[in-house]
Amino acid sequence: MTKTDMNIFEKYESEVRSYCRGFPTVFSKAKGYKMWDENGKEYIDFFSGAGALNYGHNDDHMQDKLVDYIKSDGPTHTLDMATTEKANFLQKFNDVILKPRDLDYKIMFPGPTGTNTVESALKLARKVTGRTDVISFTNGFHGMTIGSLSVTGNAMKRKGAGIPLNNTVTMPYDNFVDESMDTLDYLERFLEDNGSGVDLPAAMILETVQGEGGINAARMEWLKRVDEICKRWDILLIIDDVQAGVGRTGTFFSFEPAGIKPDIVCMSKSLSGYGLPFAITLFRPDLDIWAPGEHNGTFRGFNHAFITASAALDYWKDEQFEKNIKQKAAKVKDFLENITEKYPELQGTFCGRGLMVGIECGKEGLADEVAAEAFDRGLIMETSGPKSEVFKLFPPLNIDDEGLQKGFDIIEESVKALVSEPVTN
Amino acid sequence: MTKTDMNIFEKYESEVRSYCRGFPTVFSKAKGYKMWDENGKEYIDFFSGAGALNYGHNDDHMQDKLVDYIKSDGPTHTLDMATTEKANFLQKFNDVILKPRDLDYKIMFPGPTGTNTVESALKLARKVTGRTDVISFTNGFHGMTIGSLSVTGNAMKRKGAGIPLNNTVTMPYDNFVDESMDTLDYLERFLEDNGSGVDLPAAMILETVQGEGGINAARMEWLKRVDEICKRWDILLIIDDVQAGVGRTGTFFSFEPAGIKPDIVCMSKSLSGYGLPFAITLFRPDLDIWAPGEHNGTFRGFNHAFITASAALDYWKDEQFEKNIKQKAAKVKDFLENITEKYPELQGTFCGRGLMVGIECGKEGLADEVAAEAFDRGLIMETSGPKSEVFKLFPPLNIDDEGLQKGFDIIEESVKALVSEPVTN
Amino acid sequence: MTKTDMNIFEKYESEVRSYCRGFPTVFSKAKGYKMWDENGKEYIDFFSGAGALNYGHNDDHMQDKLVDYIKSDGPTHTLDMATTEKANFLQKFNDVILKPRDLDYKIMFPGPTGTNTVESALKLARKVTGRTDVISFTNGFHGMTIGSLSVTGNAMKRKGAGIPLNNTVTMPYDNFVDESMDTLDYLERFLEDNGSGVDLPAAMILETVQGEGGINAARMEWLKRVDEICKRWDILLIIDDVQAGVGRTGTFFSFEPAGIKPDIVCMSKSLSGYGLPFAITLFRPDLDIWAPGEHNGTFRGFNHAFITASAALDYWKDEQFEKNIKQKAAKVKDFLENITEKYPELQGTFCGRGLMVGIECGKEGLADEVAAEAFDRGLIMETSGPKSEVFKLFPPLNIDDEGLQKGFDIIEESVKALVSEPVTN
Amino acid sequence: MTKTDMNIFEKYESEVRSYCRGFPTVFSKAKGYKMWDENGKEYIDFFSGAGALNYGHNDDHMQDKLVDYIKSDGPTHTLDMATTEKANFLQKFNDVILKPRDLDYKIMFPGPTGTNTVESALKLARKVTGRTDVISFTNGFHGMTIGSLSVTGNAMKRKGAGIPLNNTVTMPYDNFVDESMDTLDYLERFLEDNGSGVDLPAAMILETVQGEGGINAARMEWLKRVDEICKRWDILLIIDDVQAGVGRTGTFFSFEPAGIKPDIVCMSKSLSGYGLPFAITLFRPDLDIWAPGEHNGTFRGFNHAFITASAALDYWKDEQFEKNIKQKAAKVKDFLENITEKYPELQGTFCGRGLMVGIECGKEGLADEVAAEAFDRGLIMETSGPKSEVFKLFPPLNIDDEGLQKGFDIIEESVKALVSEPVTN
Repeated sequence: MTKTDMNIFEKYESEVRSYCRGFPTVFSKAKGYKMWDENGKEYIDFFSGAGALNYGHNDDHMQDKLVDYIKSDGPTHTLDMATTEKANFLQKFNDVILKPRDLDYKIMFPGPTGTNTVESALKLARKVTGRTDVISFTNGFHGMTIGSLSVTGNAMKRKGAGIPLNNTVTMPYDNFVDESMDTLDYLERFLEDNGSGVDLPAAMILETVQGEGGINAARMEWLKRVDEICKRWDILLIIDDVQAGVGRTGTFFSFEPAGIKPDIVCMSKSLSGYGLPFAITLFRPDLDIWAPGEHNGTFRGFNHAFITASAALDYWKDEQFEKNIKQKAAKVKDFLENITEKYPELQGTFCGRGLMVGIECGKEGLADEVAAEAFDRGLIMETSGPKSEVFKLFPPLNIDDEGLQKGFDIIEESVKALVSEPVTN
Repeated sequence: MTKTDMNIFEKYESEVRSYCRGFPTVFSKAKGYKMWDENGKEYIDFFSGAGALNYGHNDDHMQDKLVDYIKSDGPTHTLDMATTEKANFLQKFNDVILKPRDLDYKIMFPGPTGTNTVESALKLARKVTGRTDVISFTNGFHGMTIGSLSVTGNAMKRKGAGIPLNNTVTMPYDNFVDESMDTLDYLERFLEDNGSGVDLPAAMILETVQGEGGINAARMEWLKRVDEICKRWDILLIIDDVQAGVGRTGTFFSFEPAGIKPDIVCMSKSLSGYGLPFAITLFRPDLDIWAPGEHNGTFRGFNHAFITASAALDYWKDEQFEKNIKQKAAKVKDFLENITEKYPELQGTFCGRGLMVGIECGKEGLADEVAAEAFDRGLIMETSGPKSEVFKLFPPLNIDDEGLQKGFDIIEESVKALVSEPVTN
Repeated sequence: MTKTDMNIFEKYESEVRSYCRGFPTVFSKAKGYKMWDENGKEYIDFFSGAGALNYGHNDDHMQDKLVDYIKSDGPTHTLDMATTEKANFLQKFNDVILKPRDLDYKIMFPGPTGTNTVESALKLARKVTGRTDVISFTNGFHGMTIGSLSVTGNAMKRKGAGIPLNNTVTMPYDNFVDESMDTLDYLERFLEDNGSGVDLPAAMILETVQGEGGINAARMEWLKRVDEICKRWDILLIIDDVQAGVGRTGTFFSFEPAGIKPDIVCMSKSLSGYGLPFAITLFRPDLDIWAPGEHNGTFRGFNHAFITASAALDYWKDEQFEKNIKQKAAKVKDFLENITEKYPELQGTFCGRGLMVGIECGKEGLADEVAAEAFDRGLIMETSGPKSEVFKLFPPLNIDDEGLQKGFDIIEESVKALVSEPVTN
Repeated sequence: MTKTDMNIFEKYESEVRSYCRGFPTVFSKAKGYKMWDENGKEYIDFFSGAGALNYGHNDDHMQDKLVDYIKSDGPTHTLDMATTEKANFLQKFNDVILKPRDLDYKIMFPGPTGTNTVESALKLARKVTGRTDVISFTNGFHGMTIGSLSVTGNAMKRKGAGIPLNNTVTMPYDNFVDESMDTLDYLERFLEDNGSGVDLPAAMILETVQGEGGINAARMEWLKRVDEICKRWDILLIIDDVQAGVGRTGTFFSFEPAGIKPDIVCMSKSLSGYGLPFAITLFRPDLDIWAPGEHNGTFRGFNHAFITASAALDYWKDEQFEKNIKQKAAKVKDFLENITEKYPELQGTFCGRGLMVGIECGKEGLADEVAAEAFDRGLIMETSGPKSEVFKLFPPLNIDDEGLQKGFDIIEESVKALVSEPVTN
């Protein structure tokens, strides 16, 4: 194999490309928590496709199922026609995920991406309530199509719309102002005062941990209170679990520890298990007032994804997987708190929950430098937050201890290379 | 294999599902122009995944490449990182498609669906021009997310938005009013009269043949004039070639016979060749003013699709494939004109272009009945148009004569079963 | 009295001022169809306050009533409290205007200006129907606040909004495209085709003669057909009679000759009779679903206007006034057609209806020159149309023959001064 | 004079009427701080036309000037043509008001009502900055046309729009949440965090005392900080002084004590001095980028209002008038604090500033009852706030001590009649 000329991207691909700028090499192979570039250089993957590869790359079990399916001429693309594999997925998702969690949801296939599920959720909430506004939260990220972008906080991305983004109200996420204040006091004042200028919304949409907005993890009591407020005012609660879901925070749905049952749930990214485009929208059966075809999309029936998504559900058949995630999460937290303490110049603050965590660096630009340094040393890791102020650890959930330790080592070396000597006790 | 209980869909899947209602069986295998359900019943596919399977199901060549890639642990999902397969696709798309057609476009991966590419096109057009309005056309269909839905004509689908759809102006597509009038006279009056209430738009967006809106084919001179008007008024021309592109009308891009070079082109559906979710947005290099990451999406780097899309381009290496499409198109047209004449009760009018054709039935409900009857007899075919008044022939482009003939036979039998005796000369 | 320094306006008043640029003098007195500036120069007024002074300046009868009222300490400003004068106006407007025309309308005081009545009409139509869109027409003018501006055609004025103007659809006014085409064929196609992208609107709003948009007079059969279309589709018909109403076209309401009864009528300008700010919104009693105070405004209860408006209604107690208007209209038309013929270089086309008429000049800029020349010679007259291509004759309705002739003479002299010698037969 | 049948209003006037429901009588005369109904019953006016009659009814000085002007055939209505009286007003407003306060503003006549000036301010701010959003504040009231309504908080009035109200962001007014929190901490967080979802706005618009929203008076330090924030972020500050201006709070402009100079100021209501419809928009000269006629309106040149507005400025030629207002304000405050203490059952809290004050009653419905009771006893007074929880004292600024005392007596009697015995010390 001749090596790829990096100029090809420069020459043919739009300037909009971005990850290839932070990870400037050409990847050609990937397995588990490892990737290799064309030069054979190995990378530890603490990025996991921005949360789309929670089970690592090319998981053997799913890979086998997928290859068998393809070789057997199973239908690949079937829109929303009925197929054997779709039926299997529906049944298994209900049996393995919904039923044991006492959740009763209808399943919608809104198109295969995160923004498709978010758009379908917003449409349904507005249709059901007859109201137009949706409350979103500061530093929320929900997608790049106009509906989803309207509930996304990032100013640069919003500006890309080229039109005013309307029919939404932004409220402060947990801890947005400062720790002394419960931002929901504020939100409730707007709802209860009918002169507030905030019209009764159709829904609130939020992530329980904000993946793009800085790995901000809402407190469980905050989430519970959001749920109560929604119920009190007859507002639908949409949890966008596209990034935080599928085990990333320690449970299948990220909202489980809060003991809430959202009205609508958006899922994508790791749902297929194998990195295949796939998304679903879950909602209370009584909200299922869609007319047939009222929302559609070409790639709603991608059977490869049904196959791997069903296979991935095997991870969830008992509690062992969740336990493992929690153990790894504890290790990662220990590591991060340790280096924060050891390298005070980082001005680091631990943030996040489960295996969706990071270090917010007080010094501007430092998080980006740490990620760049780590990449050079063979670790893939991205930054997050309005000023890229957080470096973000997203290892595959099934990474082993060796992999974790390798990653830790590279991160510590990278930090060390960038800041003054560590504090020694 | 035990057979699937159709109640699974009823029980777990949202009411929004639709094709499974018109094609009420469970599919389990597909190859070329054929599909089979769990009962082993064979179907001729004149539907082609609504245009996403122009090369038929599970094409051997692509299948082999895909299986090899998967088995070699090629990276599956890589966001917009650089990979060998992405580079191959970029280079080959330029060499096989763009260059020979004297087209100079940057390639953007906007997310893997049709609505992703349309949204990215609208955003870019507004960003480049600093204007907010976009002109769309009656019975246009561009997608279900808010931006794309705003330029889509269908009232039922628009209503699903739950909010007013704004920043767009609808103009009459070719032949919308009646044949005596060139609808562009009308459009131009609006542009040239600065009291018209139509603000200078950022762009016009249109399909050269409207796939969902009734298989309306615009005349070449109409398309040429649209292009001229856009140039005169410094309006960007966006061709949505999601359904009509990739050979469906006889050439790779549907606009080639008009001799125009749109500023922006949207492609998806059959682009991956294999039914895998995949989309690109093409635009003039000088329009490429995106900031890195200003538009993004999780599934922009789906390497399975790069593999099959590159393989599919082999069909286009010489002119034979185009010639074959044209020959088949002629046969289909002959057949349709023949049954139109033979069964006057159909009140049939031929519509469309290339292998994107159908019969508009004057009698309300009849097209749906023909499609249902054909399904019973083993043919998959959908209807189109605001009142489902068209039955739509979308065979794979590489179907053989036997397949075509089988399809024709079923259609004729179905028509015959529904209307009075044919006229005999 | 010392003379006013024109620099005062330059120095203190915003650049947005406009009529003072076309009529560059300082006015200090006005009576009937005459105005005088500070230098004592007399002007014939063929402008009538842009239609707000249909009875001329300072009508004696109204003036006496007004002075008496003021001197008697009648309440001036009473919001929407009940006053004797308001009751009188309500009763008299019903007795003199509505009842004899077999019109049954509730009367709303929406604030004292044209844009207030239009905004109230739009709000009511949307509230009643639960729909958001309103159809407006090319070159319509309805006001400068955001709601009214959204249904106004003029591009320069629309741009002043600084935001996209939404929830409206612009349709072609009568004769907008060319004379061979009935623009309502086009409009109806959009309504009847549910894939047209035009959502069923709450209302259509239009002027029967477009005062700012070029003195375009819709044909009576066109108005009738608009009314029929509205009825067929259950769309509310709003006639904006702010400029064309109060006798300007020959009847009190401009729509009377069409034999239609709009659902909502907007009136202002000449309604007070004396140039005092005053407006009403009329609507079918069954549409009166306003909650108390749901629309309000400080200056809804301006009793001076009730006084003069009631006095002005005396003009309408018998048919003589209408007859007089028609006679004068005939004279004006004769004059205009005559000079059009006599001065072919004008490339003049007569336009308008009643005493709302003008000459559209084929040569760009000429209408403005005629108006400027006439001003120098002692005639006040404005221009109209997207390119100011029409000079507009708006004499007071009660002007006498001498006044008319003086105006005609000045116009002819002005034309003569600007174009080549007249054609002589 | 025969008495007016109250049924006339019921029969002919829209249900939208509201003050006539709270003050159910027919008024026929008014002078100074008194009104009389047709039965000759006298009322003390603590309403002042909702702030439009700050100098009381039919002020002798203005009345004389107005009658003289009318009788002399001074032009009544002149659009934005130059007139002697307009020049006089411009010069005098500059000399008496702006210059002594070291304010340098261009003056725009945007149409004669409060909503006209607000709409013109919003348009100009968006035009100047090229941004679309405007920040408004909870319980702000700015008018009923779509632009102004979008920045108005009241839910019932907003709903009257029938369309979503967009391009605005509502922020908490001073003391909106609770006293422990400076709401501007919150607002600033939104501005400084570029992931907040709040796009950089064109302007902030606010009243220094909210007249309709509950007589909420912002603290001077809060206003100062708003001004600083606007300067820091290059956001235009619009003060809507329609109700709080013209001396109502003790100074001509309500913002004077805060030591700030807003970029744009909206004035109307009492500006004409006599209750005549009149409004101006003031702005920094460098913001005056309007094109001629880009905003217009029929009743911008109402010379009666120029006459009385100029006459009213005589009140402001020296400091005596301001001193008088302050003395009366002190008396009113004493009285209100006294009855609050004396009648604890009122659960009263003093609110407001200057002569724009009231008592917020803790018991729901009580404020309305007090106002109704007072009306029966001959006092006109309205309520304010999202739940009408405040009874509002708005006596004319030039009321004498006798008038004030009469009003106080009626209020105390009314309160007494509604609550238990007063507390006696």
